[in-house]
Amino acid sequence: MKKVFVNVSLDSEQKKRLESISDDLSFVYEKDYDAKIIIGNVPPADLKNYKDLEWIQTSAVGVDAYVKKGILNEKTVLTNAVDIHSQEVAEHAFAMMVELVKKLNLYHADQNRHQWTDEGRVREFSRMKAAVVGFGNIGKRLALLLKGLGIYVIGVKRTMIEKPDCLDELYTNAELEKAIRDVDVVFTVLPGTPENAHLFTLDTFKKMRPDAYLVNVGRGNLIAEDVLYEVLDQRIIAGLALDVFEKEPLPADSPLWDYEELIVTPHAAGFFHLESAFDAFLDLVEENLKRFVKGEQLKYVVTERG
Amino acid sequence: MKKVFVNVSLDSEQKKRLESISDDLSFVYEKDYDAKIIIGNVPPADLKNYKDLEWIQTSAVGVDAYVKKGILNEKTVLTNAVDIHSQEVAEHAFAMMVELVKKLNLYHADQNRHQWTDEGRVREFSRMKAAVVGFGNIGKRLALLLKGLGIYVIGVKRTMIEKPDCLDELYTNAELEKAIRDVDVVFTVLPGTPENAHLFTLDTFKKMRPDAYLVNVGRGNLIAEDVLYEVLDQRIIAGLALDVFEKEPLPADSPLWDYEELIVTPHAAGFFHLESAFDAFLDLVEENLKRFVKGEQLKYVVTERG
Repeated sequence: MKKVFVNVSLDSEQKKRLESISDDLSFVYEKDYDAKIIIGNVPPADLKNYKDLEWIQTSAVGVDAYVKKGILNEKTVLTNAVDIHSQEVAEHAFAMMVELVKKLNLYHADQNRHQWTDEGRVREFSRMKAAVVGFGNIGKRLALLLKGLGIYVIGVKRTMIEKPDCLDELYTNAELEKAIRDVDVVFTVLPGTPENAHLFTLDTFKKMRPDAYLVNVGRGNLIAEDVLYEVLDQRIIAGLALDVFEKEPLPADSPLWDYEELIVTPHAAGFFHLESAFDAFLDLVEENLKRFVKGEQLKYVVTERG
Repeated sequence: MKKVFVNVSLDSEQKKRLESISDDLSFVYEKDYDAKIIIGNVPPADLKNYKDLEWIQTSAVGVDAYVKKGILNEKTVLTNAVDIHSQEVAEHAFAMMVELVKKLNLYHADQNRHQWTDEGRVREFSRMKAAVVGFGNIGKRLALLLKGLGIYVIGVKRTMIEKPDCLDELYTNAELEKAIRDVDVVFTVLPGTPENAHLFTLDTFKKMRPDAYLVNVGRGNLIAEDVLYEVLDQRIIAGLALDVFEKEPLPADSPLWDYEELIVTPHAAGFFHLESAFDAFLDLVEENLKRFVKGEQLKYVVTERG
């Protein structure tokens, strides 16, 4: 019997579902270093304490913290939760965009001050253009939401593919500046790879329209913190919404909390905030556990290691 | 030459456009009690100072303050700005809904406190149901936005019409409770008529789901202020977004400003916040001025008087 440590919160019905998969597996719901399989995220630094860990199925899609040198044994299989969080991240990004373009963040600041102030002109959805930088599973869901409001959508992708119907234009990363220079809002949905670290420089922001907005739901290392302050202090663009930061959690004494033009959410876009995301994750876990006991190839094996 | 007092802000191009309509009209852009025509809103109590005012073209669609007894001379024609603000009001209502269902108002409160806190599960757009109470021009635009996200939309209208494609169900006011009892969000878009005053009682809110939201972009007299406090203090529903209040501006010492579950905007939904709304208003003004000089019937004459 192989021990499976399940580190996501399950009700009794959901536990029963997993426990009925195979007699060769036993399930524990508290940390147990004898586990050979982990379902869910654990602190990467703690992984070395598991003896002969055979497989970890993360509940995240971004596994940059797990593929770093010295974190995982070479023999340990790493699988991630591909496409599980796409819809929830897309909807969170979409919602933050809506808030920015309708100046609801400014109205919130007014509300805090008990101040009845008209904040003036706002963007009309059907006259807007958006760029989705990092056009993958999330980007596609996001583009569909944006098209639902009649927004013109430009995708930016590492490698060129045939333009899908949900996009009006598609560019590769090499044409990033062309893609973002005339849009109302830039969405960044890039993974935390070394190539993407500090990709958005002050110069990148200066290529955007000064009345444009940026929404980042990818990884915090896309924008260096000192660049963020320059963009905000010099009002290079009209506003930002960030769910991710170079240092998370954002320290309580960070001045970033206090900018009215910046919406801060606590890396919450993709953390099973939609019921359907959790349902889809359990489906994946069940599928992969069945494959594991049969000795079959698992779904979504991450082969790149740092 | 009849004097026209234009009380909306125009650039020189726009002034030229109006001034070229007819040699029988002269235009002033500062208050002038000799004006026979007013374009735009003026304080209702000030109207009695205009001698023999023939016509006022308001820039608002809601004219409850102008049709009250003693405000307008019987001979003065009142025209309103039908459908001019529909899109901007619909988009503002839509945006406030997005913020509520994605808990961005709660994340704002956390941001104010420099607090990195996950606020938990949120609604998924395509699994939501919404009711639009007061299904007119605004309601139709709103329904189209909601359908764009795959939201199920129920309309509620004073009189029954054939169900338009943008609605999944349509009820009359008599069936209000049936329409709102199982939806995630109720939008109220009702005019400030005496029949609608205090229409939403505590009992109405209790008919809604406790996890539902309400967005009011109609008139503030729909909900008595004491009912608002009861709904908020007893957490009868999950949250509200109000652009209109019984007393406007909301006094600085009102406790309403401080509820995290309440989004306050300053009656800003329909005040020419979209450029297209102002363009459409100028088109209407030009058309009605042309009709006026030709002695033709004006568009959108309000015949009901209090």
